[in-house]
Amino acid sequence: MSEIDEQASSYKVDNVNRVKRRHDRGHYDFETIHALLDSAMLCHVAYVIEGRPFCTPTFYWREGTRLYWHGSAASRMLRNLEAGEPACLTVTHLDSLVVARSPFNHSADYRSVMAFGTARLVEDQVEKEKALTMMVDRLFPKRTEDLRQSTRQEVKGSSVIYMDIERASAKIRARGVVDEDDDWGLPIYAEVIPVKTVIGDPMPCPRLVPGISRHASVRSYVAGRTLEDALAEAYIESYSLYPKDGLQR
Amino acid sequence: MSEIDEQASSYKVDNVNRVKRRHDRGHYDFETIHALLDSAMLCHVAYVIEGRPFCTPTFYWREGTRLYWHGSAASRMLRNLEAGEPACLTVTHLDSLVVARSPFNHSADYRSVMAFGTARLVEDQVEKEKALTMMVDRLFPKRTEDLRQSTRQEVKGSSVIYMDIERASAKIRARGVVDEDDDWGLPIYAEVIPVKTVIGDPMPCPRLVPGISRHASVRSYVAGRTLEDALAEAYIESYSLYPKDGLQR
Repeated sequence: MSEIDEQASSYKVDNVNRVKRRHDRGHYDFETIHALLDSAMLCHVAYVIEGRPFCTPTFYWREGTRLYWHGSAASRMLRNLEAGEPACLTVTHLDSLVVARSPFNHSADYRSVMAFGTARLVEDQVEKEKALTMMVDRLFPKRTEDLRQSTRQEVKGSSVIYMDIERASAKIRARGVVDEDDDWGLPIYAEVIPVKTVIGDPMPCPRLVPGISRHASVRSYVAGRTLEDALAEAYIESYSLYPKDGLQR
Repeated sequence: MSEIDEQASSYKVDNVNRVKRRHDRGHYDFETIHALLDSAMLCHVAYVIEGRPFCTPTFYWREGTRLYWHGSAASRMLRNLEAGEPACLTVTHLDSLVVARSPFNHSADYRSVMAFGTARLVEDQVEKEKALTMMVDRLFPKRTEDLRQSTRQEVKGSSVIYMDIERASAKIRARGVVDEDDDWGLPIYAEVIPVKTVIGDPMPCPRLVPGISRHASVRSYVAGRTLEDALAEAYIESYSLYPKDGLQR
């Protein structure tokens, strides 16, 4: 179970999630961590099968201090284990390559979150159907209302994992070029190379029936915009449409 | 040790790396896997400390069937373990969000690699200095030749991990919208939202000494280009400059 109480505004820090190296880059507050989580869709989850680590890329989203993810790849681990399994879900935003005056100071600006807890299968049928709705609607607000509804077989064939976050940390570097005091004056070129993940031109399905226009649920996704901004906007819109979840922090 | 022989052109497949769900998306050949590895710089590594999984984002690169990565975060695990520790290094390229006619068929196009092996610290001094050179030069060909050289203390303060790939798989979805036969004719909007990670305008360090122009080593990084293309080009150039490594496959 989560150890987060109602009044908390940050995650507990201990030996698991403390940012040890470069501890000045560490953050533990909900605001920082949740904002980073809500502006991405791709995570990597580490779990252990028979003592061996696996790192699986998958789609995830957040509700309060709980994370959900698409669980097909993890399902072989969780299939028979109602007690759950320890997991670490990590999200990384890469912001730049940092080209410095010495090899040692080459770096990158980035923002990442590591979240630790116990992963479990969503087995309750009502919970599962709600999670499968949010899996789509978190990206495309209210989209599922206008879709062909899932069949019983499709629901059965999907698996969703949830994890209450027990520990989490964000690690942020946003400093650009930082060279040693003695190196700034050297005749060596240095720069920051920014990178962004951006949306291209949306491509309507070539098999649309005539007269179908673009659906409101995808309106956050505009060519040239960063994926990060689109995801954050869609997230906020989607969860404000479902206020009963009351899980915005 | 690696189980890859000189003549092999693909990784061995067994229960660890076989793509089970959606096995039609699985690839095991060097060509596919190495191309995906050489066009990225950010990976996520899963490892186990005291039975608990950790998923750490870090910078990596490839030489033949060996992977190297920046090991600060893993060093607490490896510090006293010369025998190494099992690890899984994963790289993911996200290509699009796929918006379908049913919740179940919402998906994403992506290309990912999972590589399995035993992670070890590079401890030999000559090997370590070579690895620290390639950590920079793999991104910025021959850059280290023109830099202030690393001090003994900086080399000591860096840690590099290596892992011979014992098993690996690529998983690729590049199909766009795929709906059920009965759904294509429904009056529901569907589309593909492409995403790309692109380079912005390089920002010269504001503290450059006068008269310093942009260094040849960063020439692959041009505003508007995909990071993937720049990284692949820099990788090929860099390793062709060091032909003695002979590790291009």
